[in-house]
Amino acid sequence: MNGKFISIEGIEGAGKSTQLQFIADYIRSHGKQVVVTREPGGTSLGEEIREVLLKSTEQAMAEDTELLLMFAARAEHLQQVILPALKRGDWVVSDRFVDATFAYQGGGRGINEQRIKQLADWTLQGCNTDVTFLFDLPVALGQTRVEQRQQQKDRFEQEKQVFFERVRNCYLARAEVEPKRIKRIDASQNIEAIQQQLKHQLAPLLEATL
Amino acid sequence: MNGKFISIEGIEGAGKSTQLQFIADYIRSHGKQVVVTREPGGTSLGEEIREVLLKSTEQAMAEDTELLLMFAARAEHLQQVILPALKRGDWVVSDRFVDATFAYQGGGRGINEQRIKQLADWTLQGCNTDVTFLFDLPVALGQTRVEQRQQQKDRFEQEKQVFFERVRNCYLARAEVEPKRIKRIDASQNIEAIQQQLKHQLAPLLEATL
Ligand SMILES: Nc1ncnc2c1ncn2[C@@H]1O[C@H](COP(=O)(O)OP(=O)(O)O)[C@@H](O)[C@H]1O
Ligand SMILES: Nc1ncnc2c1ncn2[C@@H]1O[C@H](COP(=O)(O)OP(=O)(O)O)[C@@H](O)[C@H]1O
Ligand SMILES: [Mg+2]
Ligand SMILES: [Mg+2]
Repeated sequence: MNGKFISIEGIEGAGKSTQLQFIADYIRSHGKQVVVTREPGGTSLGEEIREVLLKSTEQAMAEDTELLLMFAARAEHLQQVILPALKRGDWVVSDRFVDATFAYQGGGRGINEQRIKQLADWTLQGCNTDVTFLFDLPVALGQTRVEQRQQQKDRFEQEKQVFFERVRNCYLARAEVEPKRIKRIDASQNIEAIQQQLKHQLAPLLEATL
Repeated sequence: MNGKFISIEGIEGAGKSTQLQFIADYIRSHGKQVVVTREPGGTSLGEEIREVLLKSTEQAMAEDTELLLMFAARAEHLQQVILPALKRGDWVVSDRFVDATFAYQGGGRGINEQRIKQLADWTLQGCNTDVTFLFDLPVALGQTRVEQRQQQKDRFEQEKQVFFERVRNCYLARAEVEPKRIKRIDASQNIEAIQQQLKHQLAPLLEATL
């Protein structure tokens, strides 16, 4: 088993999806098999769970229910896609993984971090990413990239901004606690500069599995 | 908050559904409001999760996924139905609750009991039934009641029998560990005799909440 498990994290508009394929291709160019995947989703059951999560009903789902559903999708993704790939010796590159739950549900929505950690520990049983690239950039820049415009923010958009500030800060705090696993990438740079940084970060991983 | 939370457990054919309404009516006859509910299900989201669980796909769902989905349905049931009812002072009578997961997934299917307990503790956070009536009877009698026939069992039915023996034994073991909460009812008796036993068991609960 010499494949590595890589995830890409960051707020909306950070450039995760843009660089996902670059990372996969770069690893492939070193002769590795790469499985590209994403959360939420990644399995047909994950997609079904995602639909249940997104469907708006009269009554909002309880927070606990939502967390359990998210981890159900993640368990399926891990057991049916990620672990089998790693066992074959493939590399796995996932657009988001467990850190996103801490950042969005924990940091963003304020759900108790310990509660999330307990479910994460239960589901992952010690398996986590080898490296997570945290695509970090100012929230306003991410929003601008997504919206392709730079006009004055209305109240709802300001609220969104405050929410994403909390998400960003939670990601940054996690990177500080786990600097070996979570590598901060300055995502405000242009696409080529980011790719140079990614190559630089991938080099030791690729060497370790020559 | 003086409502009580009661569940009925036992293998198929034990007579749970038959006595559910009797129990609810008996409690109502003492001037209490009673919410009658069941697992799996009990909420519209629970029904949706149930469908996801029952839908047969090419690939079997991972055990962890299945457990997380079951507890997601249970969290929703607890937060949206059971706890609000108890807060109003209503009584709740549920056809199955958490003990069924230990008996069927743990005892029957052999999923690690500690793993189930961790999710149960996370989801229930100390809230469990005040009393659980364990409808206990020989597996063959339960099967006969369900099938309304007494012919020779084929191999598949014999396997089912072994499975239900494990489920029954797990229920009995739990009743031994928690005799205050789990009351064994001899479900091989006739309907009226069981109702006498139920009235006898309900009396102290009803007196405690006069
Ligand atoms: N480094 C970059 N500089 C400028 N624009 C970028 C950069 N990376 C991505 N974009 C653009 O920003 C938008 C959001 O990128 P995307 O990769 O979809 O972000 P994410 O997946 O993190 O939400 C897209 O229109 C993309 O073309
Ligand atoms: N004490 C009893 N004696 C004989 N038959 C019973 C008794 N209780 C229930 N039955 C019958 O057995 C069958 C299964 O009962 P049911 O209440 O549906 O069991 P469960 O809900 O536990 O699976 C039904 O046909 C029911 O009428
Ligand atoms: Mg994206
Ligand atoms: Mg029944």
